[in-house]
Amino acid sequence: MGGQGEAERVITGWAAKDPSGFLSPYSFSLRKIGEEDVYIKVLCCGICHTDIHQIKNELRMSGYPMVPGHELVGEVVEVGSGVSKFRKGDRVGVGLIVGCCRSCIPCQQEEEQYCSKKIWTYNDVYTDGKPTQGGFASHMVVDQKFVVKIPDGMASEQAAPLLCAGVTVYSPLKHFGLNKSGLRGGILGLGGVGHMGVKIAKAMGHHVTVISSSDKKRGEALDHLGADEFVVSSNAEKMQELADSLDYIIDTVPVFHPLDPYLALLRLNGKLILNGVINTPLQFVTPMVMLGRRSITGSFIGSMKETEEMLEFCKEKGLKSQIEIVKMDYINQAMERLEKNNVRYRFVVDVAGSNLD
Amino acid sequence: MGGQGEAERVITGWAAKDPSGFLSPYSFSLRKIGEEDVYIKVLCCGICHTDIHQIKNELRMSGYPMVPGHELVGEVVEVGSGVSKFRKGDRVGVGLIVGCCRSCIPCQQEEEQYCSKKIWTYNDVYTDGKPTQGGFASHMVVDQKFVVKIPDGMASEQAAPLLCAGVTVYSPLKHFGLNKSGLRGGILGLGGVGHMGVKIAKAMGHHVTVISSSDKKRGEALDHLGADEFVVSSNAEKMQELADSLDYIIDTVPVFHPLDPYLALLRLNGKLILNGVINTPLQFVTPMVMLGRRSITGSFIGSMKETEEMLEFCKEKGLKSQIEIVKMDYINQAMERLEKNNVRYRFVVDVAGSNLD
Repeated sequence: MGGQGEAERVITGWAAKDPSGFLSPYSFSLRKIGEEDVYIKVLCCGICHTDIHQIKNELRMSGYPMVPGHELVGEVVEVGSGVSKFRKGDRVGVGLIVGCCRSCIPCQQEEEQYCSKKIWTYNDVYTDGKPTQGGFASHMVVDQKFVVKIPDGMASEQAAPLLCAGVTVYSPLKHFGLNKSGLRGGILGLGGVGHMGVKIAKAMGHHVTVISSSDKKRGEALDHLGADEFVVSSNAEKMQELADSLDYIIDTVPVFHPLDPYLALLRLNGKLILNGVINTPLQFVTPMVMLGRRSITGSFIGSMKETEEMLEFCKEKGLKSQIEIVKMDYINQAMERLEKNNVRYRFVVDVAGSNLD
Repeated sequence: MGGQGEAERVITGWAAKDPSGFLSPYSFSLRKIGEEDVYIKVLCCGICHTDIHQIKNELRMSGYPMVPGHELVGEVVEVGSGVSKFRKGDRVGVGLIVGCCRSCIPCQQEEEQYCSKKIWTYNDVYTDGKPTQGGFASHMVVDQKFVVKIPDGMASEQAAPLLCAGVTVYSPLKHFGLNKSGLRGGILGLGGVGHMGVKIAKAMGHHVTVISSSDKKRGEALDHLGADEFVVSSNAEKMQELADSLDYIIDTVPVFHPLDPYLALLRLNGKLILNGVINTPLQFVTPMVMLGRRSITGSFIGSMKETEEMLEFCKEKGLKSQIEIVKMDYINQAMERLEKNNVRYRFVVDVAGSNLD
């Protein structure tokens, strides 16, 4: 039985108040629980590099106060009268979007992440005209379409990074027909997305080469994450050995970098899949693409359907994200460390176990 | 009966002697006709923009003297003893490559144009260690694998530009599954390749928009070539109307240009197919690719198999290239005019009807 008649709830989250990006407690009201809504108590929420872009207005579209967080796992407290898929007590997840138009071609094809009217989980305006606020808060109200069940037996903290980082890798591999065994893949950049890339690609039966700007993650990549090879991009000899050999590269680097050295590693029809939001233009020369019919492409998270599939895939394959769990009062330090790429490999905030006030 | 025992033939072609790119008569010897070779009297040969890059050493890999020409139609004069596919008197065509390794993956897949050991029709070194020379010459000796039959009823001058410009458009549309009716395509740049792009895309049943930097080809594009729409790229309002609407763009522009304005025209999963060899790096921002799962890709001519298919397709659909026929003594002026894009749309040199000496 829904609570549509009840008053709006006032809750606490941690918000950036200005482009300094410093987060501190912030009280705000959630909308009433509509027929299609799920009222969620947040258990934990991962920190993604995009959160830094947003809280610091680096994409020049930030509104404040802004409660970030788009990789969250919570417990269902209450559901609207039209919700049949979830019930009180269920463990659920929410990712990067919470709304879409439901009528455009991408929406009709169940690829709502490409809807031009999609609503971002935070730093956007909801259908009621109020700002959306993310997962670094005690509770959220989310339309059931944008809520997924967390499989039984998967720890909440483990599941959180899958909801953005995990599906960001899973979706393009599936879409481009690269989810079959025997392929050779490259992972460029070993952060939150990259480390899940190694794990998911290995679980799909691929030979995985990590390409990194320095040697310092070699041991971890090979021993802990299970990569097959590790190549430092400045090593011309090793890069030459790798030329024309890869079916795809997942490029997770979120800052400017040249593309030609990586395009050269792709074999005929190989794909360079960009996952990093970079507003500085990237460059390449056309023969590098034409002479191997290579593609420079990219994708944006994944659909809700793919998110569910990916969670099942990770459960079935026993995949775990490698995380560092912190409390909310550490979030500003965590953001600073993430900006320096000083985390193995994803921070997850234990929201329910933190004092938010 | 082959002429393997005979002497090498000394013939005349028009060659660039240095990076000025000025062509003049040049005598050289052809190799003996091997078992697999076809000895061809050249009838006519198209001029492609790449010829200018090559004769002027703009790709920094030119050797001289260099006889250019890689879109030629000729008549078979003699065949080697192992040649069963062609006989004396056949009309045949030769395109951009005359050799490949025959053992690598692309070769095994009948996509020999992507063989890393492919041999270019001119400005390359053949298996006998001698330079290859192109179609602006009285005769050529070519391995039968790289020779195609010209369909009966298709004029030789009409067929010549299809061997490079035609297949350059046909191959990616086929490979990427874009050869089905009902799609919306864009053609960027209206030169030799672009004008064949409009004709081939229309014949596949597409709605075709020509995008050009100026308005001066509007009438020709709509009235003569049969395009459905014509948009000047500097017209922001028209470009906005076209946003998110195209399944593909064939980009034939052979000089630097920004990609983001054209990427914005592609709908979900749309492809920007680059056909212009440009050594200045091109640029784009990653969200333009990621948020619509668009691809920047490109291709390189087409396979021999696709060349045969394309010729049949053009014959069946009654497609003709729009050409200006010139004699060999006009070739230097023709190159100058082509460089200024002052030709509708392809020069074809009447080699057999010219005095070459």
